[in-house]
Amino acid sequence: MLPFDSLISATQLTPEIISDIIATTDNMATNIQQQGRIDLLDDKVVALLFFEPSSRTMMSFQSAAQRLKAGMVFAQSASATSIEKGESLEDTIRMVESYSDIIVMRHPRPGSAAIAAGTSKVPFINAGDGGNEHPTQALIDAYTIAKHKGRLDNLRVVFGFDSLQSRSIHSLSTLLAQYPNNHFTFTGPAELNPSTDMLNELKSKGAQCEIVPEVNLSDGYDIVYVNRLQEERFNEPALFEANRRKYRLTQDKVSGTDCLILDPLPRIDEIDTAVDCLPNALYFKQASYGVPVRMALLSMLLGKAI
Amino acid sequence: MLPFDSLISATQLTPEIISDIIATTDNMATNIQQQGRIDLLDDKVVALLFFEPSSRTMMSFQSAAQRLKAGMVFAQSASATSIEKGESLEDTIRMVESYSDIIVMRHPRPGSAAIAAGTSKVPFINAGDGGNEHPTQALIDAYTIAKHKGRLDNLRVVFGFDSLQSRSIHSLSTLLAQYPNNHFTFTGPAELNPSTDMLNELKSKGAQCEIVPEVNLSDGYDIVYVNRLQEERFNEPALFEANRRKYRLTQDKVSGTDCLILDPLPRIDEIDTAVDCLPNALYFKQASYGVPVRMALLSMLLGKAI
Amino acid sequence: MLPFDSLISATQLTPEIISDIIATTDNMATNIQQQGRIDLLDDKVVALLFFEPSSRTMMSFQSAAQRLKAGMVFAQSASATSIEKGESLEDTIRMVESYSDIIVMRHPRPGSAAIAAGTSKVPFINAGDGGNEHPTQALIDAYTIAKHKGRLDNLRVVFGFDSLQSRSIHSLSTLLAQYPNNHFTFTGPAELNPSTDMLNELKSKGAQCEIVPEVNLSDGYDIVYVNRLQEERFNEPALFEANRRKYRLTQDKVSGTDCLILDPLPRIDEIDTAVDCLPNALYFKQASYGVPVRMALLSMLLGKAI
Repeated sequence: MLPFDSLISATQLTPEIISDIIATTDNMATNIQQQGRIDLLDDKVVALLFFEPSSRTMMSFQSAAQRLKAGMVFAQSASATSIEKGESLEDTIRMVESYSDIIVMRHPRPGSAAIAAGTSKVPFINAGDGGNEHPTQALIDAYTIAKHKGRLDNLRVVFGFDSLQSRSIHSLSTLLAQYPNNHFTFTGPAELNPSTDMLNELKSKGAQCEIVPEVNLSDGYDIVYVNRLQEERFNEPALFEANRRKYRLTQDKVSGTDCLILDPLPRIDEIDTAVDCLPNALYFKQASYGVPVRMALLSMLLGKAI
Repeated sequence: MLPFDSLISATQLTPEIISDIIATTDNMATNIQQQGRIDLLDDKVVALLFFEPSSRTMMSFQSAAQRLKAGMVFAQSASATSIEKGESLEDTIRMVESYSDIIVMRHPRPGSAAIAAGTSKVPFINAGDGGNEHPTQALIDAYTIAKHKGRLDNLRVVFGFDSLQSRSIHSLSTLLAQYPNNHFTFTGPAELNPSTDMLNELKSKGAQCEIVPEVNLSDGYDIVYVNRLQEERFNEPALFEANRRKYRLTQDKVSGTDCLILDPLPRIDEIDTAVDCLPNALYFKQASYGVPVRMALLSMLLGKAI
Repeated sequence: MLPFDSLISATQLTPEIISDIIATTDNMATNIQQQGRIDLLDDKVVALLFFEPSSRTMMSFQSAAQRLKAGMVFAQSASATSIEKGESLEDTIRMVESYSDIIVMRHPRPGSAAIAAGTSKVPFINAGDGGNEHPTQALIDAYTIAKHKGRLDNLRVVFGFDSLQSRSIHSLSTLLAQYPNNHFTFTGPAELNPSTDMLNELKSKGAQCEIVPEVNLSDGYDIVYVNRLQEERFNEPALFEANRRKYRLTQDKVSGTDCLILDPLPRIDEIDTAVDCLPNALYFKQASYGVPVRMALLSMLLGKAI
């Protein structure tokens, strides 16, 4: 059902594939609501290798596997595995592939997902490899936009506030750049503007891009996608503090706009909690879509989607 | 089946509710014996958030969920979660509620259970919030007494040896104080006597209370409920050592009495292992009731009890 | 189906028992291939107590339990359990036996498995107790040899490179010594030769034993079973480095021989990765047999094998 065995990068996700995954996700969401759990992967075992902490991604993959009634095997934490004894990632994968029918891996090293997928005889899903890629998050974000805007093209999207380091912003903008007439406005502290490489990549795919120090969300934007600022990126605490106050969504900035508010979470200071009650505050709904999207992926990669 | 969606405190447990839970627990115990596992929660997913180590409570909740064939999702340990990145407990719950049908949480902070339950859209069970409350332990204790004494009233109960800090003693005495003619004798090192607040609270509910430095268990007591002394509560090692020897159940103190011996465990020095073989040594049986009691609670809160 | 309730030591495994386990393992392997998962232990709960990290053993027991559709309960890591609070191993087992139908335990202390099995009312499997025993690994090794050589007798086996400390070499050689006409050649750094006790034990069972500093694998050997050298066993880094280079299987040493290459893994330096593609390189296949062997053991100890 998918033209690949392993999902390593958001660049594998063409509009046609995304459209298939969205349709399957809709089915999965309906199944959860009507039946709670379904027998679809009852004969499969999913390996969850989280060699780096990740509560959100880990728990939503667990929930996806359990709602499909798959069995699960877990690695103990990275510090508790053979990896510490010096075993290569390839050897670890050769072991785990014989204990499971599909492998989901989060690993701190950029590029590790490609190595693991290249070794594995069973399907593989990259659940984040360092600062490199997090394709299932990009799919969740795309699903949220498709669901609540009805389209993935002709969008005016604001990305903030750390576009330099965020693999979520990188993956989602790359994915959306494939669709016609998308326009990206990057905002945030100058230190955290997207790299020239990233901008050139997006432009080469046809997206219009601009970088601005400040943005007025009522100027016809469709989506604002934000993430937290990390203190360690700033030389002085005072500079961090100033940016933290400036780059923060508050009720007065977002209420009354049609702008959907997304955040891959965890949320620290980038969105005021007073925003949570607004109808366009979609970040918790976005998190909830992690389960049906990952159910769709597990099923499709195992040739079992419905 | 229960007049609440979330179990936060032993004070929610009226005699009528306790009676319902005991009846359901009996059914669950029979089910385990006859069938091993039953399909009752086959369509549900239980989230187990243990942000503080707890082998006994954690494993018995796991066992309860598995014997009901529920799916499970786990948080990685507290130090490995977004909580470390500064996410609020409310945001964590908003995430987990979309991954599960019921949340069980242990958290080091007193009062965290009420906050979590107030946020959660799915039923919630407090599995211990710091030194505050541990209502499912109180239910296990009450079930043990009801099962082996045939009643929860007209009891003469000895509590020792650290009534000051034990949330188990606090919760169980509060629960039993609701029944007529219960009499509590607190014993142990003077430093660890119950607080005046706690005594007043118990007396206001109708329980008779006394504090004594020593007690003779053959003087018609029905139950002796003990927990371990913690070395760090004593200023001098010699003082701890003296108390440790004095406040310790041995065969000569308990054999020949009708006094049921309970302990929330783990047991360190407070009960000599020679006591284990006596017919009134019930602490391991008490621990075993953790599974059917928690099966009853999970089922009843999900509206599925049988 | 087995003449014991608990598997503690490879010395319990007579040729007749091994033969039964091999037959059941074959059935389990067929079941995995044909059905993925089977309902055999659908009514059971398996407790996995890993008080010491072990990715391979832990994950293959999880996979075995899940492929049999058993429920699972886990202890949190050793540092996160009551064991840290001073609870005895006996008390821990008395708790866990009431939460499960069979206990699998890895523990750092030699002899702990016998203590736990002596306490437990439910069947028990030793998944490694310190440097003492690891009987399920010995069964996996025996299964691999039986499967690929067609016999467990009349074998010429090379063991290297650390026969002194390896519980895997200890357990497998003990197991094979029961069969007629087996011949063991130990090789490796002199510091890591097997102990005189171990040699005497093997000889007393009828095995022929020799120790040699070097071996030519094309001299009619049937099996070479190796494990990694540990740096901390050598006084000087230079000595370790020299041994590490010398005692290492490379293509030129093994290709063209009929010698099956086994390794309990993880593999560090003891086998060059260029060897992996050879038809006699069986170590990843050997690891994969961990699942059906452990399925066989869980089922047989629970009286449910097919």
